[in-house]
Amino acid sequence: MPDTPIGFIGLGIMGTPMARNLMKAAYPLVVYNRTASKAQALAQEGAQAASSPREVAQRCPVVITMVTDSPDVEAVVLGKSGVIEGIQADGVLIDMSTISPQVTRAIAEQLRKRGGHMLDAPVSGGLWGAQSGTLAIMVGGEKGVFERCLPVFQAMGKTIVHVGGNGMGQVTKLVNQILVAGTLNAVCEALVFAAKAGADLEKTIEAVAEGAAGSWQLRNLGPRMVRGDFAPGFMARLQQKDLRLILEAAREMHVPLPGTALVHQLYAALEADGRGNEGTQALIRVHRLLAGVEARKKGE
Amino acid sequence: MPDTPIGFIGLGIMGTPMARNLMKAAYPLVVYNRTASKAQALAQEGAQAASSPREVAQRCPVVITMVTDSPDVEAVVLGKSGVIEGIQADGVLIDMSTISPQVTRAIAEQLRKRGGHMLDAPVSGGLWGAQSGTLAIMVGGEKGVFERCLPVFQAMGKTIVHVGGNGMGQVTKLVNQILVAGTLNAVCEALVFAAKAGADLEKTIEAVAEGAAGSWQLRNLGPRMVRGDFAPGFMARLQQKDLRLILEAAREMHVPLPGTALVHQLYAALEADGRGNEGTQALIRVHRLLAGVEARKKGE
Amino acid sequence: MPDTPIGFIGLGIMGTPMARNLMKAAYPLVVYNRTASKAQALAQEGAQAASSPREVAQRCPVVITMVTDSPDVEAVVLGKSGVIEGIQADGVLIDMSTISPQVTRAIAEQLRKRGGHMLDAPVSGGLWGAQSGTLAIMVGGEKGVFERCLPVFQAMGKTIVHVGGNGMGQVTKLVNQILVAGTLNAVCEALVFAAKAGADLEKTIEAVAEGAAGSWQLRNLGPRMVRGDFAPGFMARLQQKDLRLILEAAREMHVPLPGTALVHQLYAALEADGRGNEGTQALIRVHRLLAGVEARKKGE
Amino acid sequence: MPDTPIGFIGLGIMGTPMARNLMKAAYPLVVYNRTASKAQALAQEGAQAASSPREVAQRCPVVITMVTDSPDVEAVVLGKSGVIEGIQADGVLIDMSTISPQVTRAIAEQLRKRGGHMLDAPVSGGLWGAQSGTLAIMVGGEKGVFERCLPVFQAMGKTIVHVGGNGMGQVTKLVNQILVAGTLNAVCEALVFAAKAGADLEKTIEAVAEGAAGSWQLRNLGPRMVRGDFAPGFMARLQQKDLRLILEAAREMHVPLPGTALVHQLYAALEADGRGNEGTQALIRVHRLLAGVEARKKGE
Repeated sequence: MPDTPIGFIGLGIMGTPMARNLMKAAYPLVVYNRTASKAQALAQEGAQAASSPREVAQRCPVVITMVTDSPDVEAVVLGKSGVIEGIQADGVLIDMSTISPQVTRAIAEQLRKRGGHMLDAPVSGGLWGAQSGTLAIMVGGEKGVFERCLPVFQAMGKTIVHVGGNGMGQVTKLVNQILVAGTLNAVCEALVFAAKAGADLEKTIEAVAEGAAGSWQLRNLGPRMVRGDFAPGFMARLQQKDLRLILEAAREMHVPLPGTALVHQLYAALEADGRGNEGTQALIRVHRLLAGVEARKKGE
Repeated sequence: MPDTPIGFIGLGIMGTPMARNLMKAAYPLVVYNRTASKAQALAQEGAQAASSPREVAQRCPVVITMVTDSPDVEAVVLGKSGVIEGIQADGVLIDMSTISPQVTRAIAEQLRKRGGHMLDAPVSGGLWGAQSGTLAIMVGGEKGVFERCLPVFQAMGKTIVHVGGNGMGQVTKLVNQILVAGTLNAVCEALVFAAKAGADLEKTIEAVAEGAAGSWQLRNLGPRMVRGDFAPGFMARLQQKDLRLILEAAREMHVPLPGTALVHQLYAALEADGRGNEGTQALIRVHRLLAGVEARKKGE
Repeated sequence: MPDTPIGFIGLGIMGTPMARNLMKAAYPLVVYNRTASKAQALAQEGAQAASSPREVAQRCPVVITMVTDSPDVEAVVLGKSGVIEGIQADGVLIDMSTISPQVTRAIAEQLRKRGGHMLDAPVSGGLWGAQSGTLAIMVGGEKGVFERCLPVFQAMGKTIVHVGGNGMGQVTKLVNQILVAGTLNAVCEALVFAAKAGADLEKTIEAVAEGAAGSWQLRNLGPRMVRGDFAPGFMARLQQKDLRLILEAAREMHVPLPGTALVHQLYAALEADGRGNEGTQALIRVHRLLAGVEARKKGE
Repeated sequence: MPDTPIGFIGLGIMGTPMARNLMKAAYPLVVYNRTASKAQALAQEGAQAASSPREVAQRCPVVITMVTDSPDVEAVVLGKSGVIEGIQADGVLIDMSTISPQVTRAIAEQLRKRGGHMLDAPVSGGLWGAQSGTLAIMVGGEKGVFERCLPVFQAMGKTIVHVGGNGMGQVTKLVNQILVAGTLNAVCEALVFAAKAGADLEKTIEAVAEGAAGSWQLRNLGPRMVRGDFAPGFMARLQQKDLRLILEAAREMHVPLPGTALVHQLYAALEADGRGNEGTQALIRVHRLLAGVEARKKGE
């Protein structure tokens, strides 16, 4: 597929390294960002800057969007000078943002009417996955379109799974986030319990991390909690955005998620404390506050 | 250490294969079980049956207990004809049950007064770990005593960690169970959400299991939930017992565990449905009931 | 104030009896409803039907809206042929719907720019309060405007409190609903506990209703739960709408509401069971299902 | 019934004023307290002090116990020199403590074997109710025994209801506490929400207290929360004891109580902050902490 120009809209923390990986894979890149300065950085590395999402779509048969939330994708695709105004015949919009499955389906429908296609392809793996090209990518949309775009995904990710029709990529990402949030909260409760019982937290993690209690969250974020390292791999306020999407989708489907709803409320306390820009692991601050215990390594 | 006779009290589902692994490692075994028939089975394989916990302690410098709950350990150790009445000078009681840290410390104190030692050494890994000798063992007690008994542990387990003084093995096991319960509940909520959204559950698990959402519970119990296989690796009612121990210890220490408390209440609904003897993964039945969805593979 | 024509938009279950009470108080009424047939019923009783919200506003210095949700008020006020297009100089829009405080403030701001005023005046008391003219009305907006409209409110309600500027009426209504939902859930848990313990539920309510455990919900809805009477005073799905408004406002303000969020999830199970049109007291169905108990009077 | 000597065991904060009300009603009183000084205070007012619960029972056909928890009642009744050793033929033990229904039934069974009777008669109404003789009393036990003792109850309380056999008085009290705890938590969430939205809290309470949102907790404890008055009417740590009894009984019966369990966890945070001796209304401190808001009247 190289030689195909790829459009990339949304050059934030995640988008920029993902775009770079496409350039490394020798795709000609046409970029657009609301804040133009970020596009210029990539332009100096060889990308071409466009003046609107429409122009990106006019110049590229495949356009990727990587923005924050449902209204952002709607603005960039359906809004004034949006992708939909320039979509090529048989062109593909790949939305890699995490947004509402329902909004996704509505956008796909609009594009279809104009002769275009859509894949929803949200990612998991955080900044490190974006930089190293090892993201997990969960793709919804037509199977044939997915197969056509597979090389593009392979330039950015490792585990790439076609999970169903439009919206199912987003559903899978939300499933991912239900798991992430619930598991992380269990890690927080476990460590605060251990701390107040006087345990050596590093030894505790070591003793349980490889068995039935083991998880990515425990092995990767547990030690950071113990060290008091709250730098963001993934920001708490973005986790909150995802939890909002989950709970909205669940409400419409009438799926009770009592545990997930609880974690959403606990993160609100973290945000109330002004710490929404810290990493998700900072949730332990709320549990420490409630239990009146430090829950970190001695001397730190 | 082989040649040292080991006493083994409590020949239930877990205890019997653990005792067999000690025999495979050539330890002479003296066994006792309240229901004598279970001891006879092992006697036919070469163990010697004793008539009381006291007699076991009189004949063995190391005595293992593997029973259900705090009162069971108290009965066997401190009760009439209990271990404490026969404990040898410098003898060691290794309690591998999962019980209260506080009760553990009280028993250790009693044994110390009689010149004995105690290690609390609860295990994780379930029936399969017990059979294959790959249990995780979390040990509390004096370091020297732990080191003396290490070969005994190695006959039964793989990850063996000394985590602190008496009671800290139990604290670590409870930490393990906080993690297990919270993670499993997240798996249930994720799969019910996915099911109601029309996802292919096996593909969904495949797409997320290796990333930040991954956990032992998801990879091992998720597929069983999807297949409707609720046979017990670890019984729901024993998980409830452990959650009770956790919440009692947390109450005494004033550690709020809102997520763990919620899972305990959800399991109560499973027990109310008469399913306490099913595996912990049967918790998804409660979420399926609440969401009004099957959450299992088509055709099963 | 009588002789002043009052506009009334939204002639649903609550709106119709409220409008009738204005007519009883001798206010000339100009009515509009999306489904015109409902307006015609009132027209036969003496009201005049208008063809659009704009026309209502052109003809009346005070316009009341009583619709379902934020988008409905936005449509009727700010949409095509909306109230704002016809608002008189110094005219007042009284929105008696329960909607978002934030949307309320935005609409008030728009009306102010056109020389109009707004009061947000949501009500509590249900169908019976609407019919008997005994609603509680919580009013936000300018004090002077409130005083000018007080006679209008007095035709419909009994406890009428000016609680602050625009949006504060809605905030107070949401506060009301946090209380209603949390108290009702406690009633459900209490009755299910009592039922499973074998208590006589009517005697139990009698024994506790007048003391520290007493509440409107217990005294009014408790006996209905016991009788299995789930006819709506206030529909579960409208309670869910209000809980959504509460949790959205709380999210924006970073106020954790763990108990309220839990009740919202439990009501989702009631909706999943297809019972959103039953009364709020039907929440006990979910608790009965979880506990596996009937929780109602013998023989019913 | 006056002239009948009444025994009273447990002269704490509640017990002392209750005993005084019996003296006011002209009952001869025989008192016992573990800490003898408290008995002496009443002795100076005309009561006779006994040297053991047994002696109290030997001297009085009706013996009241008012102590803290299940083990305390067991000690005083079944322990060395306990009530059971002195119970008269056809004598009655009235336990007015709040304890486990199950323990209650076991004690009643023991007394029955010795020819005695038991009534479980826990109270609601707090210190003020004890002093003013207006307690609510929920009585379990044989109807005939209840009727015989009714005058004794009438000297101490106002709403006196016979709710069923032994243990049902305790069940009813636990029902009462489920209601109290859940309702109070709703009041806390409502006020914190209102505070962060900038509402005038006293006006807010006024606007909603008389309608569907109204409760004893809101009307009596809401204003104290707003004033920052956390003096105990009923101590948080005793509420925690009652919540523990509720959750233990619920666990044995398999009744999920997710809302009640949540409140129990939130109170644990209050205890972790060293405030278990404050009144139950201090729970709002936890919600204020989580929301990062004061939730009290300006200037206080």
